[in-house]
Amino acid sequence: MIDLYTSPTPNGHKVSVLLEEMGVEYNLIPVDLSKGAQKTPEFLAMNPNGRIPVIVDRDNDDFVVFESGAIMIYLAEKYGQFYPDDPKVRSRALQWLMFQMGGVGPMMGQANVFYRYFPEKIQPAIDRYQHECRRLFEVLNTRLEQSRYLAGDEITIADFANWAWVRTHNWSGASVEGLEHLIRWVNELYERPGCVAGIHKPERPGSSDDLVKSAQTMVTR
Amino acid sequence: MIDLYTSPTPNGHKVSVLLEEMGVEYNLIPVDLSKGAQKTPEFLAMNPNGRIPVIVDRDNDDFVVFESGAIMIYLAEKYGQFYPDDPKVRSRALQWLMFQMGGVGPMMGQANVFYRYFPEKIQPAIDRYQHECRRLFEVLNTRLEQSRYLAGDEITIADFANWAWVRTHNWSGASVEGLEHLIRWVNELYERPGCVAGIHKPERPGSSDDLVKSAQTMVTR
Repeated sequence: MIDLYTSPTPNGHKVSVLLEEMGVEYNLIPVDLSKGAQKTPEFLAMNPNGRIPVIVDRDNDDFVVFESGAIMIYLAEKYGQFYPDDPKVRSRALQWLMFQMGGVGPMMGQANVFYRYFPEKIQPAIDRYQHECRRLFEVLNTRLEQSRYLAGDEITIADFANWAWVRTHNWSGASVEGLEHLIRWVNELYERPGCVAGIHKPERPGSSDDLVKSAQTMVTR
Repeated sequence: MIDLYTSPTPNGHKVSVLLEEMGVEYNLIPVDLSKGAQKTPEFLAMNPNGRIPVIVDRDNDDFVVFESGAIMIYLAEKYGQFYPDDPKVRSRALQWLMFQMGGVGPMMGQANVFYRYFPEKIQPAIDRYQHECRRLFEVLNTRLEQSRYLAGDEITIADFANWAWVRTHNWSGASVEGLEHLIRWVNELYERPGCVAGIHKPERPGSSDDLVKSAQTMVTR
């Protein structure tokens, strides 16, 4: 059994979406970031970086894996899903996973910081990150014009990783307007029960079934 | 033969260090970022994100790999070096590679933007990123107190990836003072001929042999 320590954030959802898509059982252990539960000595012993998500594989000597990208690869290899064996397709999945890890995630994250959370309103910083998000969305759109999914004809971990972030573009204040291939792909993943289940693990306090509907329309409205 | 399109930046050096450490032949193709050579149609056909490094494997149907983290994994698997076969050690290498991809690289990169390049001096943004760099350095220091290298007793791609960034901490204005385990590890990698050769590929215009010496003392002085 996999223990998943997580919170309702895009990085957490990358892993919960993958687990739901794979149809494997797991223990969901919510980590309350508002109480600093990711900075306790017990949590830091698992991940010295003090960040969710973290998994513990109870069937593999309680092996701990942190960093959402590394967790996705660990699980995809363990269960043999969403990470094709063909070396070129696998490398392409990894390239687009890294694009999310080093680009989409950090840049949307910084846009969120300056647009939503920072004590001061610093417009040049907000602009910088929202423009960079838009640029990265355009790169994804170009790729998804050539190919149904990021690595090719098959859906892979790279799609789930990027989707968990891109679908929240409104929160970052970054537009996907006119990026028809990206929108097609975002909406296609919203049709998958595993993807929708994954973005509700764990449920946000106060949320309801209505959230599914509002999440599904996030991109197009 | 591997064609390496690169520039003298930490992300470029991740790959040139690895190739030099592996002792394999490669074609070094400098990309002049100051002239926008990474945004030409020819370059964008290889990497739609318009970023270095990129490799083309001439012995594998001209297969193109972009994103420095994905290139490192491709090369480490191809040549069977610096990416141990043991699944747990390999996962740990991947976790610390992802820590660099999603943490050290983007945060040092943003520190550089606001500390060195941004048209306005925005002190809260400079502070934010320099503090975050320091926090990440402390996480590495904690890990390197427990373990000689990031994944364990053996040096792996994770060490080269993080080292290519951390060694430039002065450029980001982020201190490693007092982080004795991190400094021990940075200096140990400076003793390796492959690491030193890799950070001079390609040579910066106007640089000389003196650079090796100044680079070697970057951390301790």
